Amino acid sequence: MAENIKKILIDLGKKVVNDIFKNKNPAIDIPVRAISNVVFNEKTKMLSLGSKTAERFFFNIGHSKKFLQTLEIAAISKSLLDVAKHASLRDVFYMAKRTIPGSNINIVDEQTESDKVIEDLELIADLSREQLNINANKMGSVAGNVIVEDKGDIIDWSKLGSGGWSIPSNVEEIKFKKVNAKYVIYMEKAAVWERLHEDRFWEKQNCLIMSSQGQTTRGIRRLLQRLSQEHGLPIFVLADFDPWGMYIYSVIKYGSINLAHISEKMTIPNVKFLGITADDIIKYDLKKNFIAMKEIDFSRLKQLSEYQWFKNNKNWQRQFKMMKDFKAKAEIQALSGRGITFVSDKYLPEKLKNKDYIE
Amino acid sequence: MAENIKKILIDLGKKVVNDIFKNKNPAIDIPVRAISNVVFNEKTKMLSLGSKTAERFFFNIGHSKKFLQTLEIAAISKSLLDVAKHASLRDVFYMAKRTIPGSNINIVDEQTESDKVIEDLELIADLSREQLNINANKMGSVAGNVIVEDKGDIIDWSKLGSGGWSIPSNVEEIKFKKVNAKYVIYMEKAAVWERLHEDRFWEKQNCLIMSSQGQTTRGIRRLLQRLSQEHGLPIFVLADFDPWGMYIYSVIKYGSINLAHISEKMTIPNVKFLGITADDIIKYDLKKNFIAMKEIDFSRLKQLSEYQWFKNNKNWQRQFKMMKDFKAKAEIQALSGRGITFVSDKYLPEKLKNKDYIE
Repeated sequence: MAENIKKILIDLGKKVVNDIFKNKNPAIDIPVRAISNVVFNEKTKMLSLGSKTAERFFFNIGHSKKFLQTLEIAAISKSLLDVAKHASLRDVFYMAKRTIPGSNINIVDEQTESDKVIEDLELIADLSREQLNINANKMGSVAGNVIVEDKGDIIDWSKLGSGGWSIPSNVEEIKFKKVNAKYVIYMEKAAVWERLHEDRFWEKQNCLIMSSQGQTTRGIRRLLQRLSQEHGLPIFVLADFDPWGMYIYSVIKYGSINLAHISEKMTIPNVKFLGITADDIIKYDLKKNFIAMKEIDFSRLKQLSEYQWFKNNKNWQRQFKMMKDFKAKAEIQALSGRGITFVSDKYLPEKLKNKDYIE
Repeated sequence: MAENIKKILIDLGKKVVNDIFKNKNPAIDIPVRAISNVVFNEKTKMLSLGSKTAERFFFNIGHSKKFLQTLEIAAISKSLLDVAKHASLRDVFYMAKRTIPGSNINIVDEQTESDKVIEDLELIADLSREQLNINANKMGSVAGNVIVEDKGDIIDWSKLGSGGWSIPSNVEEIKFKKVNAKYVIYMEKAAVWERLHEDRFWEKQNCLIMSSQGQTTRGIRRLLQRLSQEHGLPIFVLADFDPWGMYIYSVIKYGSINLAHISEKMTIPNVKFLGITADDIIKYDLKKNFIAMKEIDFSRLKQLSEYQWFKNNKNWQRQFKMMKDFKAKAEIQALSGRGITFVSDKYLPEKLKNKDYIE
């Protein structure tokens, strides 16, 4: 596996060397990653890149630094693969940051430069950053009836006390040894995860519970995708009733503009939004725990409702309209006002039993 | 244990009931938590509360709402202890938030109100929030040669693959079954933790590695403190060379103003700062990865240098001065510029061998 990936990087280098020996201006083909080339594919239901490509030339004042950076990052990635080590984005920045001999120019000055080139390389090589041994930040926990093998250890996600397994930033090499669960609930809040875990929700319902804190890491997205694709588990998102919670769902399902080039390796087309919905607020009497929407919430809600994948979706338009009418948002933890175990004992079992979720 | 804690809360309620039957104005004694009553105790080397106390009365327009809130939170805590469940701060807010019958006044309107009263209750009852079954957010990972028992599960921190054990928000009930390590390194960055973990640093050095992302959670502080107090392990902090990294160390060692009332249950007086130090920057040639300090960094540095516990500490004053002279900060990951495993293979082993750390 690592050998195949290295071969792709070596071939990239060979291509450049060949150009040089043929007295050609060395060039790399690269799909355009501007927003103008991001399209929502109605068939695959994913944000993806259009067909525009560009060539990056060595002998071109506008291109030459980027060209150099691209080869530098490819070389760093190959050196990581050589020693079977992984680096964070920040590490890669520092590994690339040095002054070009005989000049006062640094290969990179800011991490944004190396980050962008890493994303370019994902495209050029058709490999994910994780496959290039470059990791994002690690965050989040998981519990349930699953046994995995990772780095030679056998890890039983059902026997890890109150903490659970800490999800690594890179889950590509994890092997699933046993998956005995009917579905996965992913939630945006660690505190809600601890609630469900203390109530042994995953045991009673035979499911998996997974959380981050705030944004969904790439490690979590890939872990969810692998559980969906390789084990056919339905994935449910439990988020706040606000534009940000709904966007978390949107990214997991359709991808994001930034990572449109890697949608296939990240998105989960059949993920479902379990709650909190506008209807839940009425049914479970959560209005007393409303939080008034601010200007920024309204403008984000408007953006959300105009996204191509939501625009013609009646269910979502209904949610957006109700939120606008409420002029208010509500958090998952608002359910605690009905009792500390209400979310585990009543809300979630009832929602799942009644198939009361939105797509 | 839970019975003793409940008894303290029940006694608090009985005291109020007795006041009522004696026709006295019901009152609760409470140490003053204002900054004017926070002192640095030179003997214990901890930030702690001074001796000022105040009485909170029911029949006092300025006190009555806080009085009610205090009893409400005590009742919520007791109800959690009754069913052996834990709630997050946010949960407790929603559990307390309701309208007083026959009025349009809510018991609490904002989480800041319930949070403050929870801290008051820690003082009144001389119990930590964790003992009151109220948890903060969970974050962070740990790995090393330790076996714990938690919720009936036996968890081996050395056999958890690339993820490690996800540290729970509340570590009070964890039992240490085996602790086979010489020391603990706590670092502020999850990416550095993954670096050391991939390099099996804890195995080679027979230590524990622990991290959060950003601020140190109460769960982590208590876990570090328990490893220090119950197992005599030295604790080292690995942080960025900037005022914020140094403050992370300061809080772990001396406590913080906000939590001065609970310093004894949190602080670790013999924790050591392993790096990044100003001397490291020179010795390991990290200047090329300097980041220029901004206005806010300079003013934070000034504050830090004037703290009572740093003011007369020559080692620290030297560090502060060198940072000021450098006009620059540096991150742990700057070490990656020297090679991806430099931190594990050279920097840390050398620092530890030479006892090259600051107190």
